[in-house]
Amino acid sequence: MSEHGYFIAFEGGDGAGKSTQVGHLVEALEAAGREVVVTRQPGGTSLGAALRDLVLHGEAITPRAEALIFAADKAQHVQEVILPSLARGAVVVTDRYTDSSVAYQGAGRSLGAQEVADLQTWAVGGLAPDLTVLVDVDPATGRARRGGTHDRMESEADGFHAAVREHFFAMAAAAPERYLVVDGGAPADEIAAAVRARLAHEGLL
Amino acid sequence: MSEHGYFIAFEGGDGAGKSTQVGHLVEALEAAGREVVVTRQPGGTSLGAALRDLVLHGEAITPRAEALIFAADKAQHVQEVILPSLARGAVVVTDRYTDSSVAYQGAGRSLGAQEVADLQTWAVGGLAPDLTVLVDVDPATGRARRGGTHDRMESEADGFHAAVREHFFAMAAAAPERYLVVDGGAPADEIAAAVRARLAHEGLL
Repeated sequence: MSEHGYFIAFEGGDGAGKSTQVGHLVEALEAAGREVVVTRQPGGTSLGAALRDLVLHGEAITPRAEALIFAADKAQHVQEVILPSLARGAVVVTDRYTDSSVAYQGAGRSLGAQEVADLQTWAVGGLAPDLTVLVDVDPATGRARRGGTHDRMESEADGFHAAVREHFFAMAAAAPERYLVVDGGAPADEIAAAVRARLAHEGLL
Repeated sequence: MSEHGYFIAFEGGDGAGKSTQVGHLVEALEAAGREVVVTRQPGGTSLGAALRDLVLHGEAITPRAEALIFAADKAQHVQEVILPSLARGAVVVTDRYTDSSVAYQGAGRSLGAQEVADLQTWAVGGLAPDLTVLVDVDPATGRARRGGTHDRMESEADGFHAAVREHFFAMAAAAPERYLVVDGGAPADEIAAAVRARLAHEGLL
């Protein structure tokens, strides 16, 4: 999809260790002399930050309005940050992209995963990552890393996170050539090495 | 679509006289003892007002992000204002609804009218007005009412407003039983009488 650069998304549940992996990869790419643009969803532009503030601190927002606001953030982010960076040949690394929207909003059950996916695809004009690294984490490990306890509410939360995980798996299974699924429970160095190996295979390292 | 109440939208180009007609109709409905909820797009909720401020006063916003923000405003408006009002039997009268989004964004040409229509339909969960009053105005009359002059820039604007008008006509033609098309160039009292006659026919007056 990217015309000149290379577009990498890190996806996965909360507590998967995505940010750590983004940091490791950026270091490796820069050491290899690549121009790297690191960004995140939501909130990677000033419009996005304003929209995120609205969602986090505003009145009760309906599920559809929230999905549309997150999609607007994504649309602006792609046009303002990602496409210009790719056009000049940079490697763009984003911490979450469209898959997170589909997995979380789909798991929330008030909207269907497919309709959220269609909305997201339209918002980003069809721009898919060249590679998505899915950092998989089982709900119990994720909970421990988030610092949660195992009471009734956390059990309900486990069900939600299990649904999020299933959505991520389904997206990876639908386009396996564009995904690298890694075990977020493994040591961070091992995961980072697996990501580097894949990018070496792609000719980026 | 509305389960108990009745949902009326006024649509049309700038300078068509929609607001005047909304006022006349609300007066007639209230005189007939109806509970009337008057609202407008965009900005009929506090989220909507915040979103409108973002679009009007924020940085340069991409066409897709703008379309998604307007759709988010619509989603919130329907859930928070329109559906609860209809559920308790009120007549809801809105100054602009989805047709304006389709006509204006479609005429802007960076997005297709059909994709804007699909987005709007999803945002409002398929809620269509029971009756849409299209107050038609030819571009020259609209320009005169907006106070414009006829220089080169205004001629370009005429082309845009002509495209907006065509989009409105196309939507009315696709569902004639749900539209009342009135000539915005006629005296306001005549238009108001035509609207009242239609609503009497529907059993509301």
